[in-house]
Amino acid sequence: MPLRNFIFSRWRETARRYGFQEYDGPPLEELELYTVKSGAEIVGQLYNFVDKGERAVSLRPEMTPTLARMVAASERNYKKPIKWFAVPQLFRYERQQKGRLREHFQLNADIIGENDPAADAELVALLIDTLRSVGLTENDFVVRLSSRNAWQDFFAQRSSDPEKAYEFYQVIDKMERDKPEVTDEKLRSLGIQAAEVKSFIESGTPTPELEAVLRHLRSRGLDKFVQVDYNIIRGLAYYTGVVFEAFAKGATMRAIAGGGRYNNLVKLISGGKVDLPALGFGMGDVVLGDLLLEKKVVPSLKNEVDTFVLIEDETLRDASLGVAQQLREAGISVEYSLTATKADKQFKRAIELGSRATVRCIQKESAVHCLVKDLASRKEIEVSPAELLKAVAPIVSPIAKCAT
Amino acid sequence: MPLRNFIFSRWRETARRYGFQEYDGPPLEELELYTVKSGAEIVGQLYNFVDKGERAVSLRPEMTPTLARMVAASERNYKKPIKWFAVPQLFRYERQQKGRLREHFQLNADIIGENDPAADAELVALLIDTLRSVGLTENDFVVRLSSRNAWQDFFAQRSSDPEKAYEFYQVIDKMERDKPEVTDEKLRSLGIQAAEVKSFIESGTPTPELEAVLRHLRSRGLDKFVQVDYNIIRGLAYYTGVVFEAFAKGATMRAIAGGGRYNNLVKLISGGKVDLPALGFGMGDVVLGDLLLEKKVVPSLKNEVDTFVLIEDETLRDASLGVAQQLREAGISVEYSLTATKADKQFKRAIELGSRATVRCIQKESAVHCLVKDLASRKEIEVSPAELLKAVAPIVSPIAKCAT
Repeated sequence: MPLRNFIFSRWRETARRYGFQEYDGPPLEELELYTVKSGAEIVGQLYNFVDKGERAVSLRPEMTPTLARMVAASERNYKKPIKWFAVPQLFRYERQQKGRLREHFQLNADIIGENDPAADAELVALLIDTLRSVGLTENDFVVRLSSRNAWQDFFAQRSSDPEKAYEFYQVIDKMERDKPEVTDEKLRSLGIQAAEVKSFIESGTPTPELEAVLRHLRSRGLDKFVQVDYNIIRGLAYYTGVVFEAFAKGATMRAIAGGGRYNNLVKLISGGKVDLPALGFGMGDVVLGDLLLEKKVVPSLKNEVDTFVLIEDETLRDASLGVAQQLREAGISVEYSLTATKADKQFKRAIELGSRATVRCIQKESAVHCLVKDLASRKEIEVSPAELLKAVAPIVSPIAKCAT
Repeated sequence: MPLRNFIFSRWRETARRYGFQEYDGPPLEELELYTVKSGAEIVGQLYNFVDKGERAVSLRPEMTPTLARMVAASERNYKKPIKWFAVPQLFRYERQQKGRLREHFQLNADIIGENDPAADAELVALLIDTLRSVGLTENDFVVRLSSRNAWQDFFAQRSSDPEKAYEFYQVIDKMERDKPEVTDEKLRSLGIQAAEVKSFIESGTPTPELEAVLRHLRSRGLDKFVQVDYNIIRGLAYYTGVVFEAFAKGATMRAIAGGGRYNNLVKLISGGKVDLPALGFGMGDVVLGDLLLEKKVVPSLKNEVDTFVLIEDETLRDASLGVAQQLREAGISVEYSLTATKADKQFKRAIELGSRATVRCIQKESAVHCLVKDLASRKEIEVSPAELLKAVAPIVSPIAKCAT
């Protein structure tokens, strides 16, 4: 949970820096929303069912259809381009394996209503900075940039059967996982020469739209995170332009995020009523979390409290609760023993919880005083309750320290 | 969404101040988890179904059974008392109405493994401070504190049929909504005199455990938010001790949160394997959100960006993107027009988005300079790119302002 919260907070914080606004949708959608987009064969992978009201529904397997539905339903309410993100929980009906669970979360970020490659660049920049925000560097990942348009042109120039285009994209998509002879055989059956495919990929010549994306990224100093790589084409049927995947470098090359343009989807989902260009990416929490743990780049994920109030004298319990309340009201997290506990056990617990300070009440003639200890420096000072906050804040908060 | 995010962030922040740690569980559970606890009649309210693998499952209607299951499964891993919170999405199969939707979120906070009333006080204090954290005061709500033990004793002294105890609790629970003659009739059939019930409620004498809870709350200065009120008994079968509800004061008295002790539930869910005392409360986002909007206590919920980078000269787009990147990398949120846009339209958009500053690049002989405008004071200064951050930070961030 602390790892997940670390990832979620960085996702949200980075998306907001980029001016993306958070949305959400229902985890349960009509089954038709997915079959319209992906055909009936998608149903095998869905956690779908018929509900008590005889509705065919599914736990959502992805967020994009929901987004397209929501935008199409009330697009006039929103200034274009719409820049939205969400952190939905998604569901698959399949046996779980490493990096692929039955339920997971994704960061989904999308831009709707802008055709210019500037939007593709903005989205890829967000992807890069999101990965940097969790501690990854150019040594850890690369964004492989490609274009389905380029592959579309490639196929159109070599085949007289445009119906086969999607079948061809599937061959390219599986190429890195298939054996070369399997790929060659598949290409041959489509009337495409494997050597031409190979040479197109090796050329790596950017299309004009990819050139524009690269230029925008260069302006931001982010071009070093990107390479044009026509091995990427993305499996889903609905992509229409620039596509990309973020890959982990090193021993296990694996996709940690992917996306691209889907200019026809809003029109499809809305039954032709709304036609808006769109693009987006998804990044899962499971693969990313595994990677961060392997790379050991996450900060300490211990659940920590700022301060532990030690109650060594039970006659001072009421005063100690007052002290705990005073600190909590100032925004400082406080733990203490709910019942009478030996002093050394309390102190041990304070250390376990990563407390930065302890506070102890003592009876000082007719008044109660506080002993505040900085657990890093082991320095302890005595203050009156009125001076307590001023003594504790700089120990537990870097911001408060800066202010003193 | 901004209202929901406001509520969620205050929930999480307050729970952490109290040393509660966040957990989560699956949104889908085996149906049996709920029927074991609440009997077969609960099924009518659940969004349950039979899945593709012939499993009887349900979207979770509440979080407590999941929590009890999780704790029972690995309780040895956790130091007692366990102080956990979650913000689950919950589901009901029923027609939706104001304040009661088919899906909503709850803050759930629980303490497991502590029998002392100090734990009840800690939990009630968290409830009070959570409501204060969203802007509510003692004029807006009261926590009505009661004891199922007290009602249990009351009934045991007057009835020879302990089997009827739960039926009696239901009558008390519905009393404020039922007509007096309906309540009287129900009580008569249980052999209880309505006058005795009335006089017990009017006495309002705290039990020893309630006395202890009140003392702990007084130490924290929170007693003014609480009153002993035996009208409260809580509907669910599993409560065993102190119970409470937070009520909105004013025209529409309504419960905004409720909870109490459920010392037998972990044992029940674990089939007798683990026996731990426990207590918790739930607070829904829908009722609370409606209340905050009525009371007008929420801060501005506009989606805002810190800075808008105006691109008035397209030959400076690359330089402007570099400026946007520099600000974003410093944690400042930045918006700009993706494509060439008239200057007045850009400025209008900056105002709509609530930007606190604008930045414009200008060509200054062979160098690019930046004009930084504070939109509150309308003061504009010219700086070099190297001085940019120092100029923008104090305008957009109170913390940065304090540091200068």
